[in-house]
Formats: sequence, structure tokens, C-alpha cells
Amino acid sequence: MNAQPLADLSPDDLAALLDEKRAAYEDLKTRGLKLDLTRGKPSAEQLDLSDALLRLPSGTRDSSGTDVRNYGGLAGLTELRAMFAELLWVEPEQVVAGGNSSLSMMRDCLVDLMLFGGVDSERPWSQEETVRFVCPVPGYDRHFTLLESLGVEMLTVPMRKDGPDAEAVAALVADDPTIKGMWVVPTYANPTGATVSQEVAARLAAMPAAAPDFKIFWDNAYALHHLTEEEAKSADILSLAAAAGHPHRPIMFASTSKITFAGAGVAFLAASTDNVAWYLDHLGKGSIGPDKVNQLRHVEFFGSARGVRDHMVRHREIIAPKFAEVDRVLTERLGGLGVATWNNPQGGYFVNLDVLPGTASRVVELAGEAGVALTPAGSSFPLKQDPDDTNIRLAPTMPPLDEVTEAMEAVATCVVLAAAEKLAG
Amino acid sequence: MNAQPLADLSPDDLAALLDEKRAAYEDLKTRGLKLDLTRGKPSAEQLDLSDALLRLPSGTRDSSGTDVRNYGGLAGLTELRAMFAELLWVEPEQVVAGGNSSLSMMRDCLVDLMLFGGVDSERPWSQEETVRFVCPVPGYDRHFTLLESLGVEMLTVPMRKDGPDAEAVAALVADDPTIKGMWVVPTYANPTGATVSQEVAARLAAMPAAAPDFKIFWDNAYALHHLTEEEAKSADILSLAAAAGHPHRPIMFASTSKITFAGAGVAFLAASTDNVAWYLDHLGKGSIGPDKVNQLRHVEFFGSARGVRDHMVRHREIIAPKFAEVDRVLTERLGGLGVATWNNPQGGYFVNLDVLPGTASRVVELAGEAGVALTPAGSSFPLKQDPDDTNIRLAPTMPPLDEVTEAMEAVATCVVLAAAEKLAG
Repeated sequence: MNAQPLADLSPDDLAALLDEKRAAYEDLKTRGLKLDLTRGKPSAEQLDLSDALLRLPSGTRDSSGTDVRNYGGLAGLTELRAMFAELLWVEPEQVVAGGNSSLSMMRDCLVDLMLFGGVDSERPWSQEETVRFVCPVPGYDRHFTLLESLGVEMLTVPMRKDGPDAEAVAALVADDPTIKGMWVVPTYANPTGATVSQEVAARLAAMPAAAPDFKIFWDNAYALHHLTEEEAKSADILSLAAAAGHPHRPIMFASTSKITFAGAGVAFLAASTDNVAWYLDHLGKGSIGPDKVNQLRHVEFFGSARGVRDHMVRHREIIAPKFAEVDRVLTERLGGLGVATWNNPQGGYFVNLDVLPGTASRVVELAGEAGVALTPAGSSFPLKQDPDDTNIRLAPTMPPLDEVTEAMEAVATCVVLAAAEKLAG
Repeated sequence: MNAQPLADLSPDDLAALLDEKRAAYEDLKTRGLKLDLTRGKPSAEQLDLSDALLRLPSGTRDSSGTDVRNYGGLAGLTELRAMFAELLWVEPEQVVAGGNSSLSMMRDCLVDLMLFGGVDSERPWSQEETVRFVCPVPGYDRHFTLLESLGVEMLTVPMRKDGPDAEAVAALVADDPTIKGMWVVPTYANPTGATVSQEVAARLAAMPAAAPDFKIFWDNAYALHHLTEEEAKSADILSLAAAAGHPHRPIMFASTSKITFAGAGVAFLAASTDNVAWYLDHLGKGSIGPDKVNQLRHVEFFGSARGVRDHMVRHREIIAPKFAEVDRVLTERLGGLGVATWNNPQGGYFVNLDVLPGTASRVVELAGEAGVALTPAGSSFPLKQDPDDTNIRLAPTMPPLDEVTEAMEAVATCVVLAAAEKLAG
């Protein structure tokens, strides 16, 4: 472990380090690695935890006696809505249990806002000159791609340890009616791992907004995805917003994609009952109902909200060591060099690695050429543009532990090499 | 069986008949019926045919080795696309295997056309002054509701025994660029049971259209749903359109909702490869992939395209007697009275009953008060307006056979009573 900051090295020492790291990198390339830290995907071992689903449901009727094999039931199975209402700290009538993708529910909401407007809109958003969203950065790339595809302009604010910079958000939205909404990943955010504090949530719920139909897209994708025994509790955004006189401001999303099977689970939307009615009204134009067989499958598999929480402990046991390994390798290899900072997340699926400004793209390029696929630099920013070229998102859940080690050793080499190139440059 | 047309009865005889039918109707009301012929839903016995699905899939990998329990694969499982390509007479690369609802795929396409335009559009449809669709009537109520929700104006043309009146369609679309598309249910149409002939399909595929991006929404919901051994073969609309120089005109839809489980099956879209790429590009903004576990479940269950066809024979054995019973009761009770005509469909899910003009609403009202729920009169027309108040859609698949008999006896009573009321005026 070399604890001297690279920036403090003499030109000769830096040149020597550069030679050494180039050699190490050439050696790395000869190893024919094929590793992937790009996406937040569960590992096969995690998926195995839910294989009992493959033999369920044992029955074909829900608690009301409805045959789940037939059409209908747009809002989803009552018992599944109740189970996830408990887990998301909302009321059952505020919850819709949908299809296999919360991202699809988000797109549906945005499309409906565009084409029809919301319950509190003066007109469809597509009839506005400009529609803008506040995007805390770094954030989730698919959120930004979705907005970009719909022509929504994006304004960034910093993501902090307690959530989005609420004062910056409040200042933006107070006087600008073109700002129609914002993204928040409230719990163990993608990629920073931050959890929105009660205070920040209350501020976002209560802040005056020039747009009467300002929306908070509250993507609670990792609400239950703890990495330690100390479990963060998501702020109760629906109650906070209702109490502040903005009941229709938040729309919450969640899913079991990272609880049971990724892409074969159940997604949820939670909002004011007026928002739920609005969503279902538009949904019903293109749907007769969700896959209730898969919903009953999940009801039987979990048994109760407690069953979901117990299941998440087993996920934690599998993935927490991988996150610990990322931190161990980065600390050993990069500690004291002054070329990177990173977080040690308490939940979620990502490690946020900030490398020497101006080198993130180079690190990703070097890693890729050595057989370690990383998410493209800039992905966590709107239009994929990281102004400082510093941010890299690491997703360590899918590879086996030994591959995490190998991949992170390689990443560390690339981070130091890119930094040395830059400083020598 | 009274074979004398009601219209030929003397006033006295008509009055006597009216008294008689009123008494029969009052008797009917005392029976406390609770029967439902409203929607084209499979019966429990039909759903039981697919219960092996509840214990599938036995594996977790598709033919390429991909773990179906994880994210990805936007276009669906290769082997399922190939299976339904064979059944729909298209190429595998022209097929997308999606989620649980073909109606959702139709809405997605319409929304994408509105917001972005198609591969051959000059601009998004939402930027046109007016967007209109040709709607053959009677037709599928959800098609019309969907267009209505998007502000699309509807022009009707008659549905005939060989499909939509192609000359009427051609005359409409030739000079009017606001007409952007049309609905067709090509095989065993909802509700008339008509199958589009090769000639009509070729005409629709080849006719000049003023709109360069004219689309045929070819909803092949009943492609495989034969009621006799003589199986109608759907016209190959994709090839016909490509040969005529309009490769991007048709978009085909299908699903297994009435093959396996209603709302828990797999839906399909088939179109030119450019259209498929267009659809997937927009789909990918809000989806990481379909439920591949359910797709693999279906692959294993069917085994092959032949497996699907064999499965449909078992459906036929269950529901053909119900359709025969509808025809038997209507013939016995209404034959010769000159108050109704109906079809004896060779496939699909519906019987189209045309009663004395001006009495359809009354028949549905009378039946409802006697405990027999029918689809609201007018449902098979845009904006639910049947100009002649003559059309009633009967859906006999879901009730057990004895209930079909009971319901149809009641319907027959209501048809004659409403006609007698009308003629007695």
C-alpha cells in the first residue's frame, strides 16, 4: 500500500510510478479477464432464493374467491396490495400491484401526464412550451433516458448524504412553472447509497412550487434492500405531502425485481387515492388487468410482510460480503493515494466511485480493454454528461465473490494508471 | 315455435302476444337468475387445460443459456418468438414476445405514434390537426375506447362476411391524409365472427393511402381459436403489404390470453423489422425486458407450434357445444319471427345478434332486470353509439352449458318482448 498522494510525488517518482502501473496494466491485459460490474443485477445465488416460486401458486383463487387465471382486477390482488402497503408504510387503497416493471409504471405516468395531464394539471404537459425536471446527480441512468426520450429538459442538483440538496430544489421550483417534477431514489440511492432524511423529505413535500401539478417521482427501488442490520426506514412521503397540502405531489414506485426474480416479479405504484384513480383510469384503456397468477404466486411465497423482510436478510447474507470486498480492495489499493473516494453503502446495489476529475472515461476505457466491463462514464448524469468526468458506478452484486475481488483489483490498477497519466500529462 | 313474423300479426294477435310475453317475462324475473354473457372470458374448464403451467418452468435457462430469472431480453425468448412466428405465418425476427396483454402493446404503439410518429411519419401524430381511424363495425369495444381516449376520431365502415368493406375503406383513405389507420380483427372477428378473405387483405395492403404512415392494426386475437375442424387461415398481411410496397403498414397483435390463462399469458406483436426496431426502441425506454420466466413456462408447456394447435382442439371441444346451444335456442325460439338475425361463428368468442332495429337497448335492459347481464347495447360501435340500436354481442364461453341454455332462453324472451312492444308501439 502506497500511502503517499500521487499529486505530491516528484516528477521522477511520478514517471517511475507511471512505468510501474503501465507494466501492471499490460500484465492485467494478458490475463484474459471477462468480468462485468455494469448493471445492478442479482446473482444466480440470490435468484435461487426464490426458486419455490417456480412451483407456485398452489391454488388458483385469491382471498375474495376470484379465479386468478381469468381476466380482471386492474389494481392487483388485494392481499398483495395490503402486504406491500405495510412494507411501504402506506394504505392498501393507495397501492396498485401491477406488472413486471416499475420502470414501465414510471413511463406510463409520464406518458399520461404528457398526453392528459395529472389530477392537478391545467393542461396536458405536451401542451406546455417547456417541461423540466429536477434531477439529483449522480442518479439512475434510466430515469434520465426516459425523460430525454420524452423531450423533458433536466436540471441537476447535488445528491448529498441525506438526499437531494433540498434548498437548491426549493429555490429552483419556487418561481419556475416549467419545472414539473423531480426524481428521488429515497432509500439507498442509485448510485450514491444515500437515504433521504426525514427533514429533506418534509422539505420536498412542503416546498412551494410554481407548477400546481409538480410531481415527485419517488422511486423506492431499494426500500427493503439493507446491507447491514441497521435498516434505514424510508420517509413517509405520502403522509408528509398530504399534511403539507400537496397530497398529489408524490408518486411512489417499487418492485420485487431485486427481491424475487428480476423482470419476473411484481411492480407497485403508491400515491394519493385520486392519483391512483387517475393512473388506473388511463391504465384501463390498455389493460384488462395484471398477471394475477404471478401476484398470487408472490402472495403465497412471501406469506406476509414479515416474510418479505426475512427474505431480504438472506439476500443481505449473499451480497454484503461483496460490498465489503469492494471496500477492502479499494482501501488497500487506493487508500492514501488521493486519486479516488468512494462510499461504503448501507443498502442498495451500487458503490459510487469518484476518481481523479477528468479520468473517469479513461478508467472505464482501460478497464474495458482489460476485460472488465464498467458502466460507461457519465451514465449517472443527464445526457450521460458528467461535467467533471469523475463518477463511476460499480455494481458488485452479480459476479461471484472471487470475481468481485479480481475485478476490483483490476479497477484499482486502472484508477491509479489513469491518475498517473493525467498528473504526468 | 311460432313461425309467423311478428310484423305480419294483426293488432289483436300482437296485443295477445305482448300479454303472453309480458307474463313470460314476469315469470322469468321471479327465477332469480344471475347469469353473465358480457365478456369473452374463458371458462374454468378451459383454464384447467393449462394448469400444468402452475408447476413450470422446470428449468431456468432458455435455449441460449440465458437465466430467465434475471433482467434483459427486450424482444422476448427466441424460441417463443419462433413458435408464434410459425403460428402467425411470419418470420421470427418480425415477432416480439411481450408481457401479459396485447391490448397494452396496441396502446403502446398508438402512444408512440402520437408522441414520436412511426418509421414513415412526417411528424408525431399529436402534432396533426386531426387524426382519424377507420373502424369496421360492429367491432371490439376496447379498440374504440382506446382511440377515444387518445382523441382519435373514428369513421365507420361495414364489417362483412369477408372482412371490412374494402372498397369503402379504400375510398376513405385515398384522399384524406388525416386518416392514419384502421382496426382489423382478421380472423373470427369480434363480434361478427367474420374472417378477412385473401382478396380483402390484399386490397387493404395495397390500396393507396394519402397518409404516408397509414397503419393497419391487425388484431389477430382469435387466429387459432377455431370452433370447427375447418380451420380458417389468416391472410399473410405482412407479406401482402411488403409485396405491395407498404411494408410498414400492418402491425399484428396476438396473445395466449385465450389459449392458456387470460391475463397471465404472453402477448405478441409482429411487423416489419423496421417497425419491430421502432417498437423496441420506445419500449426500451420503460422496460428492461418482459417476464421471461412466464415465457419459458409457455415454451415448455406447448413444446412446439403443433402443441399450441393441439391445445386449441381441447378448447374447441369445451366451447363448441356452447355456441351450438346458442344457435339451437335462438333458432327454436326466434326462428321465423322476423325479429332477429344472428351468426353461427366458425371460431372466436362471440355471437353477433341483431335484433329488431330500435330494440337492442331495451333487450339488454330487460335481460339485466331479469338477472342476465349482456354487454351494453352499442358497445360494438365507436362512442358506444349503434345508429340502429340493433346490435347485441353475446359471449357464451364462460358460463357452464346449462347456464348458457338458461341465459339464451331468457334472452330470447326479452328479444320477442322488446319487438312486440316496439311493433305495438
